[in-house]
Amino acid sequence: MIISIIGSGEPTEEISSLAKEVGKELALRNIMIICGGLGGVMESACMGAKSVGGTTIGILPGNSPNDANRWVDIPICTGMALARNVIIVKSSVASIAIGGAFGTLSEIGHALAENIPVIGLKTWELSKDGNRNHSLIVANDPKEAVDKAIEAANNRAPL
Amino acid sequence: MIISIIGSGEPTEEISSLAKEVGKELALRNIMIICGGLGGVMESACMGAKSVGGTTIGILPGNSPNDANRWVDIPICTGMALARNVIIVKSSVASIAIGGAFGTLSEIGHALAENIPVIGLKTWELSKDGNRNHSLIVANDPKEAVDKAIEAANNRAPL
Amino acid sequence: MIISIIGSGEPTEEISSLAKEVGKELALRNIMIICGGLGGVMESACMGAKSVGGTTIGILPGNSPNDANRWVDIPICTGMALARNVIIVKSSVASIAIGGAFGTLSEIGHALAENIPVIGLKTWELSKDGNRNHSLIVANDPKEAVDKAIEAANNRAPL
Amino acid sequence: MIISIIGSGEPTEEISSLAKEVGKELALRNIMIICGGLGGVMESACMGAKSVGGTTIGILPGNSPNDANRWVDIPICTGMALARNVIIVKSSVASIAIGGAFGTLSEIGHALAENIPVIGLKTWELSKDGNRNHSLIVANDPKEAVDKAIEAANNRAPL
Repeated sequence: MIISIIGSGEPTEEISSLAKEVGKELALRNIMIICGGLGGVMESACMGAKSVGGTTIGILPGNSPNDANRWVDIPICTGMALARNVIIVKSSVASIAIGGAFGTLSEIGHALAENIPVIGLKTWELSKDGNRNHSLIVANDPKEAVDKAIEAANNRAPL
Repeated sequence: MIISIIGSGEPTEEISSLAKEVGKELALRNIMIICGGLGGVMESACMGAKSVGGTTIGILPGNSPNDANRWVDIPICTGMALARNVIIVKSSVASIAIGGAFGTLSEIGHALAENIPVIGLKTWELSKDGNRNHSLIVANDPKEAVDKAIEAANNRAPL
Repeated sequence: MIISIIGSGEPTEEISSLAKEVGKELALRNIMIICGGLGGVMESACMGAKSVGGTTIGILPGNSPNDANRWVDIPICTGMALARNVIIVKSSVASIAIGGAFGTLSEIGHALAENIPVIGLKTWELSKDGNRNHSLIVANDPKEAVDKAIEAANNRAPL
Repeated sequence: MIISIIGSGEPTEEISSLAKEVGKELALRNIMIICGGLGGVMESACMGAKSVGGTTIGILPGNSPNDANRWVDIPICTGMALARNVIIVKSSVASIAIGGAFGTLSEIGHALAENIPVIGLKTWELSKDGNRNHSLIVANDPKEAVDKAIEAANNRAPL
């Protein structure tokens, strides 16, 4: 089982800390993590996963595996810049968004468009016509985020 | 000058009507429109543009130009499914989001991540930590959307 | 009808001259040309097409329409580097390869893999186990290349 | 170190057998293999690698990890059809082409265009103007292919 972690390359310390916990929590349950492979949330999540022996996949925007943060086990070079965002979420059964800027927003959109559940931890809130959209599942802490991601993935119709 | 129009393939009648007006308004100012090339908002926008002799570009998710709605002059076949969303916004100097579902949300994210201004007409509202994010420029009608898109495009730093 | 022209960014003068003639010949028959939008064969082909009022589409590897040669009418920015090669051939009913380096080779492979006919003008010759592969249709001059491209496109099974 | 194996989904038995040996030989040297993740050469190579405990990555054209052959450890879903070919070669330090049809040809082109060495085992031979092009390094058996791939990767200029 692969779960994606999406979030900004320039997070606050609080967000980084949450990302590290989420990575660790996923790895403890033998779930591989996939992310954009760079710094910030991506690096913290990979560091957390590796701290307990997890496996980490980085889908890189550029051409060199050297672009990956040092906690990435499997660096995939796409050379496709932000178009690689689609691949991150498509390769996972659920996505956990932690903080995040506009790249993360694009990933949330891609995931929900493909019926991949997204768990949000201090990330974007979406509304339309003044009404909150509840497609994004809210979590309050790393453990809850992982619990809800696994539950949502298991409830998904098979592909 | 090329401006993108993004929105759902299954809009309400009100949204379709707005899309048609936006397409027409852009074409009247000699601006080419680019969109996803399929039905719904995409088709209405192309129809509006063609009603006054505009030029329309459709960036298709599939492999056949026959997938394009009949108002597309230039069908581009990507075979890349939703990864083509990036191309739509990257090829434009500004983007007008009309209504829209999750695919549109991914396009808004991609555009803002690339510093391409997005004008919203009855589309997603974004907030984080309970605070409205004002990166998306709100318009109240098609003419205002086009005015604001051109103004924002002109104010953008050159690439 | 859209036909793609593929070839190197750094051709010999002879190859450039052939590309210009092919672009012109296609435009004279009201066929739009699509190419990678940069210099070399791409620029010469666009120049030829524009010299007789044709329409030219450039599928760019980068993010800025300013990367396009000045004969491109419709610059499409993919930001996907060489992954954009697929889009060039997929958007056309036939492809004419003129000279060409390894990027052109990738385009020939993508076209033939998708059953899009490729006409070769002083381009790669393919063989396997010492036997010439005849999937690539050889032409001896620009007019013959265009004739054979149109014929092959018309003989293709509909999508 | 990651090396890519490229080849047809519908190979002869001889080619399948070579692919299995190449996969095994790479895994014995602790090199991860990356491929298109489907059947034929891809499946045989993964099977060979797994027979000695190697790690296998499959870059899939579609949306479901279930498309991967059963020897793939890390299934990456791109949803990008043949545009995923670029990613396979870009993620590796060298590529071994075994047999192969037109998709393989596109991968050879992409690899050589990016200065990634390609070792050929009963695959395409390239020539231009009647002269054999020697960019593709010929190997006569699986062990030689792996030796030459490692040597070529080590001789490459760093990115």
